[in-house]
Amino acid sequence: MLGGPIAGAPVDFSHGDVDAFRPSPGSFEAFSDGVATGGKQAYTEYRGDFAIRQAVAQRLAAFTGASVDGRDGLIITPGTQGALFLAIASTVSRGDKVAIVQPDYFANRKIVEFLEGHCLPVRLDYMDRQASAGLDLDQLEAAFKAGAKVFLFSNPNNPTGAVYSRQEVAHIAELANRHRATVIVDQLYSRLTYTGAQFAHLRAQTTDAAEILTIMGPSKTESLSGYRLGVAFGSQSLVDRMEKLQAIVSLRAAGYGQSVLGTWFNEPQGWLTERIRLHQGIRDDLLSVLRSTDGLTVRSPDAGSYLFPRLPPLSVPHLDFVRFLRLQAGVTVTPGTEFAPHCGSSIRLNFSQDHMAAIEAVKRLGELIERYRQ
Amino acid sequence: MLGGPIAGAPVDFSHGDVDAFRPSPGSFEAFSDGVATGGKQAYTEYRGDFAIRQAVAQRLAAFTGASVDGRDGLIITPGTQGALFLAIASTVSRGDKVAIVQPDYFANRKIVEFLEGHCLPVRLDYMDRQASAGLDLDQLEAAFKAGAKVFLFSNPNNPTGAVYSRQEVAHIAELANRHRATVIVDQLYSRLTYTGAQFAHLRAQTTDAAEILTIMGPSKTESLSGYRLGVAFGSQSLVDRMEKLQAIVSLRAAGYGQSVLGTWFNEPQGWLTERIRLHQGIRDDLLSVLRSTDGLTVRSPDAGSYLFPRLPPLSVPHLDFVRFLRLQAGVTVTPGTEFAPHCGSSIRLNFSQDHMAAIEAVKRLGELIERYRQ
Repeated sequence: MLGGPIAGAPVDFSHGDVDAFRPSPGSFEAFSDGVATGGKQAYTEYRGDFAIRQAVAQRLAAFTGASVDGRDGLIITPGTQGALFLAIASTVSRGDKVAIVQPDYFANRKIVEFLEGHCLPVRLDYMDRQASAGLDLDQLEAAFKAGAKVFLFSNPNNPTGAVYSRQEVAHIAELANRHRATVIVDQLYSRLTYTGAQFAHLRAQTTDAAEILTIMGPSKTESLSGYRLGVAFGSQSLVDRMEKLQAIVSLRAAGYGQSVLGTWFNEPQGWLTERIRLHQGIRDDLLSVLRSTDGLTVRSPDAGSYLFPRLPPLSVPHLDFVRFLRLQAGVTVTPGTEFAPHCGSSIRLNFSQDHMAAIEAVKRLGELIERYRQ
Repeated sequence: MLGGPIAGAPVDFSHGDVDAFRPSPGSFEAFSDGVATGGKQAYTEYRGDFAIRQAVAQRLAAFTGASVDGRDGLIITPGTQGALFLAIASTVSRGDKVAIVQPDYFANRKIVEFLEGHCLPVRLDYMDRQASAGLDLDQLEAAFKAGAKVFLFSNPNNPTGAVYSRQEVAHIAELANRHRATVIVDQLYSRLTYTGAQFAHLRAQTTDAAEILTIMGPSKTESLSGYRLGVAFGSQSLVDRMEKLQAIVSLRAAGYGQSVLGTWFNEPQGWLTERIRLHQGIRDDLLSVLRSTDGLTVRSPDAGSYLFPRLPPLSVPHLDFVRFLRLQAGVTVTPGTEFAPHCGSSIRLNFSQDHMAAIEAVKRLGELIERYRQ
């Protein structure tokens, strides 16, 4: 390590700070109501309480622009991670080919590998553009032609915050329909969209030919991660298979916790707008600080709370730099190699943090880049 | 269906009634404290909060009579179901042979089958004995000799409530050590033991040769199922593998919920004794009612809240009878075939219910048996 420590309040950018952005209003009260309801709420169907599923289905239909069947087409899971695992494990068997985006959320690849599936990477050329996410659609088509029966992606993209354009989503839908593929789309961050972003929901763009499953949950924008809640909705046959698997994986999302979903897409007037405004402010300030570093490139995220800057050439391996950043500057980030093998010079920051602490921490990042600049 | 309905308050014996036996004292307050703690409690390590693991480890060491390493040898999971899935999925690969007991908890077999493992059944001859559970130890040895690397069983046995004798447990330990097998023992009900029962903890009887994992949780005796909490403890290498898998299956047990484990094995003086006394009273009354039916045989459970009576020959298939029982008498039970292919004439009742309602429901069961008697 070069030089000494750089003083400042430690910031852990590996996940959002739910003390800076508090759980959405009424969540704890809803949980308390669930406990008071007693046995009926403790022992729900494996796919979740029927009344809660119905209420959430209506709101998700309004949000995504296509109907959701609360009885047969939606399952409540322990977090969106739970939904992702159940969806992939219900779809992918040993040797199956799965198209996944690079970069994308690391668990996508890890789950496919656990199931002994075979990943076919599809490149996302996300940098230096704003009108699209930059998916290599030719590569996606080639993956389908090579036998991929499943396409798995996050929109907004994790780690870059890129939102897929309406044209990209329509093209994905067209390819999926043509190849009768299953598409699992993780839309965890689709509520937190910034000025100018247009979010297109894949499920509103497809026919019955493709099997579509959409995954969402209140862990991020709503800061409800401590309750572990997610939902998956769409294909009824896939939801059926997921419920059978949930019965042996964890039985159900915690019964009392399910009550908290009553507050979701049901927050007080103006709450979401304000949360977006605050995050957009942090995003813009951090982008200014980051862009003052020579040779650092970063896409402005259209949605979500991730920044994925590519660092300039350094005198130490990037994984070492990530470690020094934590030890010398109190700044914890996620290394880019988690998201794609070719993203070794990038780092991911979840900027859902205390605004001022985040700015100071990113300044320390800039200082440390200068110290280790090649 | 023969005859009309039999009036009475419906009882669902497929799981315990947490309105009749309320969640253990302080659980909700502990959850509230977890929420108040904020981000630190929402985002714990994947294996669970360190301080909570340490506290639980100490209490489990005292309970089981062998040390538990809270840092490296214990993981908090979403229910004991979560622990069971992670443990088996971290141990069993395609084609692996696994010795499982018949009858035993149905998920054991289902998880092994999901993983494409191969079940080698070991018979439990549980009826008409009290001094042992009745495990066919020769068959277990044969399973190990045939290549089983894993033995999986519940103690107390689900569905019979049989507790393995000290001699049986010692014999299992000896065989596991000799064959260097992994043993996963689900002790979910091991706190709720009745007068005269002697509970022997496998983990206190083995050397390092065998890899032992014990699974417990507060969902049953403590009525905390609505929080989805379990723990697995023992083999460090197995706990490590389970945590890696948990990172892609559900991340962690709900962070706020983990706080509830602070109340576990830490209940007010006399609470457990009273809960046992009340369950023993229900057990004894239901046994009297059941045994008044000619040709019905049932073992008195040594622990837990399951009864597993074998019904006399009926004029209709047993699965139909189970359905008629629900439709005509408002009595929901779990059919014996869930637990072993040869247990088709048995049914499982979870008698953690309102005492009087349970007695009335079992009387209606007797009445319906007479109606359908062969």
